[in-house]
Amino acid sequence: MPETTTCWADLPADTPFGLDNLPYGVFTVRGVERDRPRVGVAVGDRVLDVGRAARAAGHPALARTLDGPDLNPLLRLGRSAWTELRGMLRDWLTDEDHRETVEPLLLARADVEMHLPFHPGDYVDFYSSEHHAANLGRILRPNDEPLKPNWKHLPVGYHGRAGTVVASGTPIVRPRGQRLPAGAGAPEFGPSARLDIEAEMGFVVGGAGTRLGEPVPVEEFRDHVFGAVLVNDWSARDIQAWEYVPLGPFLAKSFATSVGEWVVPLDALEEARTAPPERDVELLDYLRDGAEQGGPWGFDVAMEVRLNGERIAEPPFASMYWTAAQQLAHLTVNGAVVRAGDLFASGTVSGPEPHQWGSLMELTRGGREPLKLADGEERTFLADGDEVVITATAPGANGSRIGFGEVAGRIAPARR
Amino acid sequence: MPETTTCWADLPADTPFGLDNLPYGVFTVRGVERDRPRVGVAVGDRVLDVGRAARAAGHPALARTLDGPDLNPLLRLGRSAWTELRGMLRDWLTDEDHRETVEPLLLARADVEMHLPFHPGDYVDFYSSEHHAANLGRILRPNDEPLKPNWKHLPVGYHGRAGTVVASGTPIVRPRGQRLPAGAGAPEFGPSARLDIEAEMGFVVGGAGTRLGEPVPVEEFRDHVFGAVLVNDWSARDIQAWEYVPLGPFLAKSFATSVGEWVVPLDALEEARTAPPERDVELLDYLRDGAEQGGPWGFDVAMEVRLNGERIAEPPFASMYWTAAQQLAHLTVNGAVVRAGDLFASGTVSGPEPHQWGSLMELTRGGREPLKLADGEERTFLADGDEVVITATAPGANGSRIGFGEVAGRIAPARR
Repeated sequence: MPETTTCWADLPADTPFGLDNLPYGVFTVRGVERDRPRVGVAVGDRVLDVGRAARAAGHPALARTLDGPDLNPLLRLGRSAWTELRGMLRDWLTDEDHRETVEPLLLARADVEMHLPFHPGDYVDFYSSEHHAANLGRILRPNDEPLKPNWKHLPVGYHGRAGTVVASGTPIVRPRGQRLPAGAGAPEFGPSARLDIEAEMGFVVGGAGTRLGEPVPVEEFRDHVFGAVLVNDWSARDIQAWEYVPLGPFLAKSFATSVGEWVVPLDALEEARTAPPERDVELLDYLRDGAEQGGPWGFDVAMEVRLNGERIAEPPFASMYWTAAQQLAHLTVNGAVVRAGDLFASGTVSGPEPHQWGSLMELTRGGREPLKLADGEERTFLADGDEVVITATAPGANGSRIGFGEVAGRIAPARR
Repeated sequence: MPETTTCWADLPADTPFGLDNLPYGVFTVRGVERDRPRVGVAVGDRVLDVGRAARAAGHPALARTLDGPDLNPLLRLGRSAWTELRGMLRDWLTDEDHRETVEPLLLARADVEMHLPFHPGDYVDFYSSEHHAANLGRILRPNDEPLKPNWKHLPVGYHGRAGTVVASGTPIVRPRGQRLPAGAGAPEFGPSARLDIEAEMGFVVGGAGTRLGEPVPVEEFRDHVFGAVLVNDWSARDIQAWEYVPLGPFLAKSFATSVGEWVVPLDALEEARTAPPERDVELLDYLRDGAEQGGPWGFDVAMEVRLNGERIAEPPFASMYWTAAQQLAHLTVNGAVVRAGDLFASGTVSGPEPHQWGSLMELTRGGREPLKLADGEERTFLADGDEVVITATAPGANGSRIGFGEVAGRIAPARR
């Protein structure tokens, strides 16, 4: 359908939630007791109750997949249903004939509360920014090559804890754990003193799921991925440094991973597609992601990290060395199953410039150079009460911007 | 109730599935089209259709939690419901008044097919055998200390892939992936040439689940763990060696993890409780597991690994350095949530003696000394067609043995 069709509702000029975006989330109406979490779509500064719209339009079976409590039933439907629903949404929102039915189903954003949009069966976190991996290598292993020998041959990743993926706004309780004080022979136990963020972009799996032994080649990325969502992979650097050898990060990451309110459909990101950086080593066949494989699969998403309201970083997602299509191909090349709702995230997004680094570990050079904030305060790592908000936008059609909303979290003191 | 009460049904002498065991699984009846997977309890060489028994005994609400498709609804009920059901099962099977109703609900084991007993939300694998960790250290890092500095201070672990936890008997397709040939500068892609087993014991979480930020201390182990199950954590050693730095094993493990048919309730393992090995370093408070914390929490379980019918190892679970109660306390000390159905496994169980090692990596000294099998064949790692069966027993009341059934898997050739 033509991108220039306009909505019968007044959308704010330059809204990041125009008809070219239409991201999905899960909401309840504030003040309604025991209101059922159900699927909503952001339209301007309002939220459409999509299930009720589908029911009103005579699609009861589709409506049932939108009744909540999460996006998972919609995710299971697969690519052709998603495309069809997207077409319907545009119709409902542009055709005056639908206005009378649909307009009452648009709720003010301020009147609804957003919830965890999907429940992941498995959560994988990659490590796909060359700048981030090299920065961390230089900080943690100053006498070594910054990148490990495998880094440019495969997207390094690991499994995170699916059960602690939480909605934007969930308070992040400072984790307690073991850490080895400098020079000490034995660890101490206590609240993490090096609590950090990781600004990431996640991808949400959809479709009927795969069967054991069935890889998802780069070419089939669109059939198995519904959309993208902001991720903050909170990290306790002191716990991580002590525990991570030889099996990788565990409790340093598993206390909470926040995801954004809105899942932006891949269809909304067509304009944002861009070539990933030049690769310096030859890729094995299953990781090729050029035009022949339906690429490019990079996305030109501009991210922003705010700490207590002040912008501290602008990570450019376009700079990621490994793309989401390669990540999914790698994740499944051994035959591992993916299921609708699974989440895989990019790893910290860091660009080449210091103001583009997506973690405090990098921004403060391992905690050695505090960030000086506008209010006169300094931070190496997060203090109790600090709020971190990550946002992002991407180019849409006709010069518009696609918004991802935000992923937010405030640090609560450790339990005693 | 007295342990000497006998079942009105004829149980085979020395059955590992006597009234002191009563493990739970999920079955369908062979030959019944689209039969619904539901909960069964092993009794001698038969399986009791527990949901129908509960319904017949006038417990419809309980019966609904046993209707399948997995144990998860029963797991959510929590400790007091599990104890009550266990008492009912003993009544039904010993009181002649129940015989007429219950006996028709006992199906021959040969007539039923067993399925994945529970669906884990999260799967964590530990690394808790000192002998295994030291053996691997010596093989992989011959010039280093065999154990990393953190190993005796915390139970090292990582998250595995919950979506590829599969039922005993599921064919294991040889995974493909990247591995670095000795001396090569770049990796190759292909079927794993070093496919291995890991003989493990897993623990299945139950209860209402915890809230974010709420640890499970050692003292509360019994309230949050339903029982134990055999685990074979299949491992591709060549893929692992190349990929695992610095974030740990990923595709080398995520293609499949097999779990046993039967989950043995903790109540059945009371006689098997035993003190773990003496610890050489002082434990932080949250990891203490002595009598004050309700310990000991070691279990004297004798495991056996058979390759194509021939016994190749007898791993002693009693030799594990870290106990399941410590593992759960560690896993949650940072505030991570656990949910009913979550699985955490011990890591490879290896004793001090070579015939007690629970992986081929150890049994063949990193593939350098092939196992000579009785049929004249040799193995370093698994060949296509090989079948691995792991079994285990533990002491029960009055000199009886408690059986865990088996976890079995046969290697299928890699996909082309």
